[in-house]
Amino acid sequence: MAIEVDYRFTPTIDAHKQAKVIAIGQTVGTWDARFAHREASLTSHKSEVVSVFKEPDNYSIATIRFPEANVENDVSSLLTMIFGKYSMAGTAKVIAVRLPENYGLRPKFGISGIRELLNVRERPLIMAIFKPALGLSAIDHAAILKEVAFAGLDIIKDDEILGNLPSCQTLERLKACREVLDTVKQQTGRTVLYAVNVTGNAAQLLQRARELVSHGANALLLNVFSYGFSVLEALVSDPEVNVPIFTHPAGAGALCAAPDYGFAYSVSLGTLMAYAGADAVLYPAHYGNLPFDANQEAQIRDTLRARNTMPVPSAGIHPGVVSKAISDYGQDVILNAGTGIMDHPDGAASGVKAFFEALEYAQKGESLSLDSLPDGALKSAIQKWGVWVDK
Amino acid sequence: MAIEVDYRFTPTIDAHKQAKVIAIGQTVGTWDARFAHREASLTSHKSEVVSVFKEPDNYSIATIRFPEANVENDVSSLLTMIFGKYSMAGTAKVIAVRLPENYGLRPKFGISGIRELLNVRERPLIMAIFKPALGLSAIDHAAILKEVAFAGLDIIKDDEILGNLPSCQTLERLKACREVLDTVKQQTGRTVLYAVNVTGNAAQLLQRARELVSHGANALLLNVFSYGFSVLEALVSDPEVNVPIFTHPAGAGALCAAPDYGFAYSVSLGTLMAYAGADAVLYPAHYGNLPFDANQEAQIRDTLRARNTMPVPSAGIHPGVVSKAISDYGQDVILNAGTGIMDHPDGAASGVKAFFEALEYAQKGESLSLDSLPDGALKSAIQKWGVWVDK
Repeated sequence: MAIEVDYRFTPTIDAHKQAKVIAIGQTVGTWDARFAHREASLTSHKSEVVSVFKEPDNYSIATIRFPEANVENDVSSLLTMIFGKYSMAGTAKVIAVRLPENYGLRPKFGISGIRELLNVRERPLIMAIFKPALGLSAIDHAAILKEVAFAGLDIIKDDEILGNLPSCQTLERLKACREVLDTVKQQTGRTVLYAVNVTGNAAQLLQRARELVSHGANALLLNVFSYGFSVLEALVSDPEVNVPIFTHPAGAGALCAAPDYGFAYSVSLGTLMAYAGADAVLYPAHYGNLPFDANQEAQIRDTLRARNTMPVPSAGIHPGVVSKAISDYGQDVILNAGTGIMDHPDGAASGVKAFFEALEYAQKGESLSLDSLPDGALKSAIQKWGVWVDK
Repeated sequence: MAIEVDYRFTPTIDAHKQAKVIAIGQTVGTWDARFAHREASLTSHKSEVVSVFKEPDNYSIATIRFPEANVENDVSSLLTMIFGKYSMAGTAKVIAVRLPENYGLRPKFGISGIRELLNVRERPLIMAIFKPALGLSAIDHAAILKEVAFAGLDIIKDDEILGNLPSCQTLERLKACREVLDTVKQQTGRTVLYAVNVTGNAAQLLQRARELVSHGANALLLNVFSYGFSVLEALVSDPEVNVPIFTHPAGAGALCAAPDYGFAYSVSLGTLMAYAGADAVLYPAHYGNLPFDANQEAQIRDTLRARNTMPVPSAGIHPGVVSKAISDYGQDVILNAGTGIMDHPDGAASGVKAFFEALEYAQKGESLSLDSLPDGALKSAIQKWGVWVDK
């Protein structure tokens, strides 16, 4: 199977012409009689415009088919091919990329592997983010983790902006938190994952990932758009990095937010992440605090799951949206909350409890109302953040 | 010195409010009484909105100052901080980033180092690109290189879309071309650089870079937007990779082409490349075949040179634009041509000669006209591609 890419052009663009320009310019170009002896080889690298359709809004969608022979079975060479030089050629947005089933990588853990690590099979997973994002010590992190882990949390992650800073070095953070994870395991039998943010130049980052894992890190976090898909693929391919990799969407808006340029979010946070082998992918939920399109979110969810990658809707998640999330996602989802857990009026442990209470209501299909809720963690959360109601 | 970033907001955005949202959300967030004991540390990570100005077109420009303490003296953590999560928060474009002088990396070679390697001090350098981009064998590459290198070319590079393909493996290409480079050196005393496109997942890529250098590669090419700034920084930091690194702008349009989203080209191809330590940076010339703004080009040129990084205006360069390029750039520039050399009517060697003839005219300040040109390589080139005339 070949690689198919859908490009959307604004009404002002001659889509037939521009699609041809991309198909030729992003592959073999043209050649003259001097290269007649390489005709067969040259032709095998050509791409073709499969179709050009006009949409009701006068935008056009052109589909180009690229030979797999032009790329290296990875995301980085794919990016250069499908939207390299010609990303600078005028308005065009890559709205879909269809790859052969066996293209790229698959998650080492994914939905099934993460569930196995946690020994939680039949409910959504609850994840928290350390807050405040910066300025806390390793000891502070351990104290927070203790609170939320004993309250029943499944997963915690560093804030994506917390790297390896002198005031809070990554390895020190891990060591302090690892002790807590061990205590929780001993006392409750439960595994809690801590996705440690791994940073540095690519060589340092890959080395640090191995070092963190050898010191007991049981998950990693990567800002893929800051560090590169090639770094994600190296982590996924490294047998020493035998822990799930969570990816963060920081920077995705620079590539995807413009209506007529760049990539659709469903491509960058769905297709590319899934084929680069991410185990769990964070992205904004459309009922969160960032503007995000519900259709794009649904496409990301389905694209990830088709490769066993765990969807992690994020950004503004609180107990009042749990019911909505469950109706959108069912069970195979990680609900990821930062302030929605850490800023609970009664403290972070209550933040976790509120989520589990909300989950119970959602599983039973019962709606939440302040009047009927008993006093407790969930009620306090709903008083603070309200309940999501579909418009 | 702190890090200052200018964000441009569309007229519909409340710029004061949005700047504050970014300043808080992209750094330490908010905290409550529980963290009073960390007040000093938390405060040291806060950013501040320095100014918000309304432009004549009703767009606003907000400047935010971020603490250096929040990042790791590299581009990747900088990207996460200045336009991470909040790149998804609505229309906003990063139009300038001002970094402390000692931030990041400097090129190992840059303008002065490349000139020293080539032993060419006082004229622009001429660079070609192997064409056709795909479908040729290692032997074909060597044959092309022989032709252009003996004609006087300074530098050649792989096409950015040619990776490590079974039909033309990178190492084989290098070995075949390295023989030619050695022959040229023996027979003419001249060094010619060949920037080999280095690809693969980050671990493979870094390993391959070392392998290529150990097999005689004297320059490398990296698609930074496909592979990641962290990969560029790892190459620059690697003492074994003691060759100049040329960076290609493939994919930059997805980040920069939208008027109201992402990054200005001058940031991604200027500031970020310069502080990541690139030796030579390719980007479109405004008189080439891609739409590119002359002011952005000038900003890129000046930003690169301020760090000793070589500017390489590209895409549609032919002998007819040499005079224009020299008036824009003076001497410290690499003129990079693909078809403008390879598709010369009399062959690639004539393509090179035409450039050097055009350079002579430009250095003497003489304008080109078909009528007065003697028959030869330059005249044939001008007949094919014409002469650039400022509008």
